Order: sequence, then C-alpha cells, then structure tokens
Amino acid sequence: MSKEGSNTCSGSEFDALGGQIMAWADALAQHTDSAGMMTRTYLTPAHHGAAQQLACWMEEAGMQVRRDQAGNVIGRYEAAQPGAPALMTGSHFDTVRNGGIYDGMLGVLLPIACVQRWNRQGKRFPFALEIAGFAEEEGVRFSATLLGSRAIAGTFVHAVLDNVDEAGVSMRAALAQAGFDPALLDSARYGPASLLGFLEVHIEQGPVLLHAGAPVGVVSAISGASRFAVEVQGQAGHAGTVPMAGRRDAAMAAAEIALYIEQRCQGVPGLVGTVGQFQVPHGAANVVPGKAVFSIDIRACRDQDRENAVADVLEAARRVAERRGVELALRRTHEAPSVPCAERLQQQLAASIERLGLPLHRLPSGAGHDAMALAAIADVAMLFVRCGNGGISHSPDETMTAADAATAAQVFSDFVEHFN
Amino acid sequence: MSKEGSNTCSGSEFDALGGQIMAWADALAQHTDSAGMMTRTYLTPAHHGAAQQLACWMEEAGMQVRRDQAGNVIGRYEAAQPGAPALMTGSHFDTVRNGGIYDGMLGVLLPIACVQRWNRQGKRFPFALEIAGFAEEEGVRFSATLLGSRAIAGTFVHAVLDNVDEAGVSMRAALAQAGFDPALLDSARYGPASLLGFLEVHIEQGPVLLHAGAPVGVVSAISGASRFAVEVQGQAGHAGTVPMAGRRDAAMAAAEIALYIEQRCQGVPGLVGTVGQFQVPHGAANVVPGKAVFSIDIRACRDQDRENAVADVLEAARRVAERRGVELALRRTHEAPSVPCAERLQQQLAASIERLGLPLHRLPSGAGHDAMALAAIADVAMLFVRCGNGGISHSPDETMTAADAATAAQVFSDFVEHFN
Repeated sequence: MSKEGSNTCSGSEFDALGGQIMAWADALAQHTDSAGMMTRTYLTPAHHGAAQQLACWMEEAGMQVRRDQAGNVIGRYEAAQPGAPALMTGSHFDTVRNGGIYDGMLGVLLPIACVQRWNRQGKRFPFALEIAGFAEEEGVRFSATLLGSRAIAGTFVHAVLDNVDEAGVSMRAALAQAGFDPALLDSARYGPASLLGFLEVHIEQGPVLLHAGAPVGVVSAISGASRFAVEVQGQAGHAGTVPMAGRRDAAMAAAEIALYIEQRCQGVPGLVGTVGQFQVPHGAANVVPGKAVFSIDIRACRDQDRENAVADVLEAARRVAERRGVELALRRTHEAPSVPCAERLQQQLAASIERLGLPLHRLPSGAGHDAMALAAIADVAMLFVRCGNGGISHSPDETMTAADAATAAQVFSDFVEHFN
Repeated sequence: MSKEGSNTCSGSEFDALGGQIMAWADALAQHTDSAGMMTRTYLTPAHHGAAQQLACWMEEAGMQVRRDQAGNVIGRYEAAQPGAPALMTGSHFDTVRNGGIYDGMLGVLLPIACVQRWNRQGKRFPFALEIAGFAEEEGVRFSATLLGSRAIAGTFVHAVLDNVDEAGVSMRAALAQAGFDPALLDSARYGPASLLGFLEVHIEQGPVLLHAGAPVGVVSAISGASRFAVEVQGQAGHAGTVPMAGRRDAAMAAAEIALYIEQRCQGVPGLVGTVGQFQVPHGAANVVPGKAVFSIDIRACRDQDRENAVADVLEAARRVAERRGVELALRRTHEAPSVPCAERLQQQLAASIERLGLPLHRLPSGAGHDAMALAAIADVAMLFVRCGNGGISHSPDETMTAADAATAAQVFSDFVEHFN
C-alpha cells in the first residue's frame, strides 16, 4: 500500500475504530472473577469467557482462530499468499486483581479492529498478520509471569506447572480441568522462521506520554530489573530508656538505605529505584525497632546503569549496616536483563508516527511485557499509548481516551501497511 | 537508727535478702495468664493468685495487709506509735505480655524482704512503712495505664471503667466479677496528709547503669512524653513506569522524617525520639508507596527539651511533606509532662548510696512508672536497679543479679532507717 493510499484513510474512519476498541474493552470487562472489579486470572471461568469473546470478535473480523495448549487465543489474518510467514502482534487478556480494563486488552482489541477494517476493504498483505491474546502475563494466580507468551516462545518453564493457587490447585490440574493437556504445552511453540517480527501495543502505565503531550510513543527497550528482599536485624529496646547513642535501630538503618536508593537513582535517564515494601514487624510506638524488612526494586533500560546502581546500593547498605551495628540479610528475588526493541522495527514505527504528523516520543518500558518473552524468537517492538489519570494503571482508575485509541490504531495500521 | 548501726549489718545478711528476693520473683512468676511465659494482666485468676501470694509474704514479714477496691495489695508495717503517717513504697505486680519477672515485682518484693529483717530485729520507725503492690500499671488488658496507683492517688478516670478487653469484657464487669465494687473505687484514695513520701524501687529497663558499672541509680525525673500517629498520603504508581522526578512516594517522605527525628534527638541529654511503628500498608515490591504510616515517640526529662524537639520535628515533617507533595495527617496520641523526683528524697537516696561506698549515678527514667501517679499526693523518688542483658526489659530476656538485689535492699534499708 502506498503512502498516499494510507493518507486517504479519513480521521473519522479511525475515530470509529477508536470507539469500537473502547466499547470492546468495556464489554470484555464483564468477564471478571469478582463482580464489581476487573480481576481475570488464568484459567478461571471468566478467563475462558473472555477467550471465547475474543475468538468471536477475531472470527467476525475475518481471521482463522485457534486456542493453543497454553490457552492463548490466536487469530490469523491470512497473507495474500496463504502460508506465508507472519507478523505477530498481541498482548495479554488476564489482569491483576482489581486492575484496569486496557492493560493488556488494548493490544489485542486494537489489532482486531484494524483487521476488521482491512477485511472489509479486502486488503491482504504479503505476510500473514497474527494476533495473539496471551492467556497469562501478570502472574497473579500461580506466581509465575508471561506464561502465554513463554509457551509461544518455547521458554515455558515446566516446573511452574506444579505451582499452586491460593486454593491449592496446581497449574497442571487447572490446565487439565480447563480442557488443555499440560503434556502438549510445547506444541504452542513457534519456530523463529515462522515470525517476521512482533509488535505489542500497550497502554503506557505511566505518566511520561501524558506529561509529554504525546498520544503514542515508541518503546526503546524493556527495562531490566533487579529485586531484593532485605531484612535488617538490630536491637529492640524501650523507647524511653535506651539513650540515642546506644541504639541499633533497624528501622533507621532501613530508612537511611531507602533514601540512598532514591537519591542514587535520580538524574540517570531510564533508571528507577523503589522501596515498595517497608515494615517494622510487630512494631510498637514505645519500642525501638529490633527488626525491619523492606524491598528494593531497581530498573533501567541500560543494563550497565542498573548494575552500577545495584552495586552502589549494596555497598551503601553494607556501609550503613556497619556504622549502625545492625545485621543485613539480603536476598536477590528477581533478576532480568533489559530487552532492547529492534532498531528496524523502532524505525518503521517512528516513520509511521511522523507520516501521520504526530510528535515522535521514545521511552523505555519500566514494566515487563509479553514482548520480553517473544524476543527469544523474533525481533520485537512496542507501541505505547498514552495513559490518562496521571498514568495510573493496575487500578480501576486506569483510563485512556477513544481519541488516543483511534490515533494508535492509525499508527498501527500505517506500520503494518508499510511493514517490510 | 544511727549510721554506725546501719554499718553493722553484714554484707552476708543482705546477700541472703538478695537471694530471697530473687527466689520470690521466681515463685511469683508461676502466677501467669499463659503457661511458659510471664503474662499477668489485671483481674485474671493469675493476677488474683499473685495478689494472694504477696499478701501472704507481707503478713509473714509482720505487716497488716488489705486489698483496696482497685485490687491493690497494701501491707502496713506499723510505726513505733501506731497510726502515724506512712512512708509508702511499692510498684506494680501486673506485667506486659511475655514480659520479665522483675519489672514491677522487684519494687514490691524488695521492701517485703527488708521489712522481714526489721521485724525479726524488732525494729520500728517513727513512721509507718506501707508497701503497695499496685494491681495495674502496664495497661495491657484495658488499654489504660497506672490504674492501681491512680486509684490511690485519687486520679482514677472513671470513664475507663467502660473500656473493654479483647473478649469484650468491661473493666467494670471484670472488677465486679473479681469481688470488687467499682462504685467504691474512690475509697482507695489516700489523703496527702497520710503520706510522708513515696519511694519506688524498679529495675532500670535500660542499659545506662549497666554501662556505667553502677548497681543502683537515683532517678532525677520521670520523662515527659509526646506521641503521634502519622499517616502520609502520596501517590501510588508502578515501580517501573513512574520516573523518579515525578514521584510522590509516601514511604520516602516517612523515611526522611524518621531520620530527622533521630538526628534531632541526638546529643541532648535525657532526650530520646523513636519511630517504633513504620509500615507501607499492602506494600508491594513493584509499587511506589502511595501511603505510609508511622509513630513518633519523643521523651525528655526536661519538658522544654521535649517541647522544642516536638516543635522542630513537626516543622520538619511539614517541610518534607510540602517539598515532596504528600499529605500528612498527624494525630497526637499521648502527652504527659515530666514528673521531677523530690530533691529532698533524691538527696537522702544519694546519701545512703554514698554511705555504703557505692558509685552515685543519677539518671532520668524514660519509662513511665507508678511514681508518676503518686506524685499527685506525695513527694516521690525512685531507686533504679541495674538491668542485665544489655538493659532488655518487657521481654523474657530481662535479667538482674541477686548481688544487685542485695545492694539495692541495703540502699533501701539505709534510706528508710535515715528517712526524715
């Protein structure tokens, strides 16, 4: 399709797609584990209902639809020459507890709406377009993330089949009960040759595009992350009777380390450090804390930035502990390198954005996404869509506008139409 | 009794008293609400058993014993001239949950042992000596402290009769069930003219005497205290997607305020500041804290030192909150001025310590004690006894030595024998 052809698509046509995407997101939200909130975890009845609904919309849009043994819903919009390799897009349709209705779902619904339009126009591409609704990304039910996309990428870790949910049901049993065969999970795997690339559309889940005044952004990389659980052991004492000079206050040591983390991570683009958990167990107002526990989460799009920050934080923590006479027990709970988005796909996304006269904004993704898993078998890219309400996500307060959905659909369509 | 007379008391005689005091403390510890730990709360069967045991030992020591309507056990060692005003001593026989066996009890048992000795010697004083086992000081069961000593001082707040324990039983009902008449509580009150003074012997519950190498110390004042519950409201966000610059992290604001409190309270003698509770409610490693709660406890023997520190801390908290864009909700949960110990009694205690060739150490009491309540009707003084094990109290790890009990008994005896 020529550049001129693309520009003949009227704004109002995409406005309608934007409205369609928002309406679908509202409708899909009815499939929830808990009435009154958006909670859809792996392999529940609500999860199955959402999968059926997505399959229905994909078929109506002109796609061949199948579910694989991980529960992923995959629609294929056949190429001009049937059987050609595919450009894959998609995102997840599970949610966190009491989450938003766009996180994940936008990246499934938006491409369906675009395919619907091409199908009406009778347009086919030299490649197939596959839309994957990944069955599991958030890790809520079985404490393991990216299950759907890992199955497709061939990096599914079979040990997690023995993880159990809060009711003691194993993932293995839940799969079987939902009609899947855990022994055939590997059949979900794609060979690298079958994919030309993977593009994930996702709500930003942060305030960067909102503050920049940009409806969409090109993701440069998915940040790597290092996470630690820290326990500080000091000496409990009576708040009134232990003089300041003799104290080994675990909470003060933790507070000092926490503030160092904040200070160290400021001013380096793409680097963030967070102490999300902080607690004095069984603390009482009149007792000097003998123990404190806290978490450390450090992320950066450049691995070197993250590793330098982690090293400095660990060194500072040791220094603080030594000076204050407290013991530190530090356990690394998560470690993932950054996943860069493919230059060629970033350039093509940027070209689409510029063709449409939109501001070009590049940003790292601080959150993990299915694209991380797909990177094992394909070049990946991500298109972020502006998040409303201060950038809040993983919350019922997550919002985005139909206008931004329309703009993102236009960028996505232009990207696919020019993809090579 | 003359100074020479006092010095004829052999060390071994007081060594025996020390052993007696320690043995009584062990025996009394059998009266506990929970087997395997020292927990004795107001008006429980264990509490009643301890009261009966104390009464028994008091009678054997030659005292007339009665229980008042608050459950206090009061033994009177009559003066040479019956009916003379009394010097009162004593402490509480309730405990915290899983506490120590000397906290409170030492101040009841030690004087009984001394009276036992005088009784054997046939010694009487120009004043009566009354030993009060205060029924309630710690406030565990009904969330109100100093109940026994307040009843005697006439400062009992009748509203607390409606406080309920964890099982929903009101203090009023518990008193009636234990055979007391809540309507007659005021009969426990002493008139100021009936008391010549009040001396409380108590384990220090801190490390000051231990570090100073002194078996006993003269308390200069019971510190005043200001306590606050603080709630910080910031903005929750995704740990990966919200850049450092745009954050309103409630935990970081709390950490900064906590460290200010520590720094502000350092270097001023007798001033202590503690953040004993610190929590990010429902915190998660990957979420920027939107909320944090913590406690502030500031104490000083000089009220002006405490008030200046509180003012500075509140000002600093406001400054931190404003700079970080978070909201502070600050509730004052406790406020008590310092209670100075009477100069004349401090001097007499110091004279006894010096007569016995012991190092004279003065220190404030950072913890509250029954003497605070008694100060409403009498001059008060406190004799602190060295706490072992780093100064730990309110814990099964609370320890003290028989030798220190003997020394304290000798100081107490000398004080009483020279009291005027």
